[in-house]
Amino acid sequence: MQLVRFRIDLAPRCSLGPGKIALLEAIAERGSLTQAAATLGMSYRYAWLLLEDLKHSFTAPVTRATIGGRGGGGVELTKFGAELVRRYVKARHRIDVVARSAFAPLVKKVSTRASRPAPDKKRARSIKRAA
Amino acid sequence: MQLVRFRIDLAPRCSLGPGKIALLEAIAERGSLTQAAATLGMSYRYAWLLLEDLKHSFTAPVTRATIGGRGGGGVELTKFGAELVRRYVKARHRIDVVARSAFAPLVKKVSTRASRPAPDKKRARSIKRAA
Repeated sequence: MQLVRFRIDLAPRCSLGPGKIALLEAIAERGSLTQAAATLGMSYRYAWLLLEDLKHSFTAPVTRATIGGRGGGGVELTKFGAELVRRYVKARHRIDVVARSAFAPLVKKVSTRASRPAPDKKRARSIKRAA
Repeated sequence: MQLVRFRIDLAPRCSLGPGKIALLEAIAERGSLTQAAATLGMSYRYAWLLLEDLKHSFTAPVTRATIGGRGGGGVELTKFGAELVRRYVKARHRIDVVARSAFAPLVKKVSTRASRPAPDKKRARSIKRAA
């Protein structure tokens, strides 16, 4: 189980979090924004907004259009886009190690109720997001 | 500037994030849930829900009622509540160090536009949360 979800703010309007990274990873895998969004259960519009936000965040592009192939062209990561993902994934691993050591003594105080999966995923997600 | 915001999931329904920790810190400082919520610009109901969630997350209570004083009683952190805050703050510091080293080479690629403060804070916050 992944322990930590994190967002890094590189500047007031330049942030990287689990949503953007998952999107870039799905684009690398699927080669299409439509298919990447579908894989993640994200609306096309939301995925597009995340990419727009990334486009305005950095001086280098994170994706580029591909031409041809099935469906008549798609999108792929640039070298810089792949670097964003690689750095985030590496940091995530190291942050998980830090968090495991910092919070290990608390795990035995988790209630049995909290250890069970949430009965309604949507509600649980909204509570987690709120926290 | 704090670089990273993170949430740790100790179990499916047991998570700690910046909102809950800020609330516990404000309770320790103000001695009242109403005042803590006001300090953070949180509704009383939202603050109460966060505390309820914490109450169901752990076997030990994180806050307890205080009796007497101005306003006729309030709330304070238990020893365990204070421990949650202490561990989170310590982990936050170490995670910031990890993130700074992992993302340092990207800072020079942040666009000038993204380096300026957002013109409309509410909108910027919703985009960040989305990411």
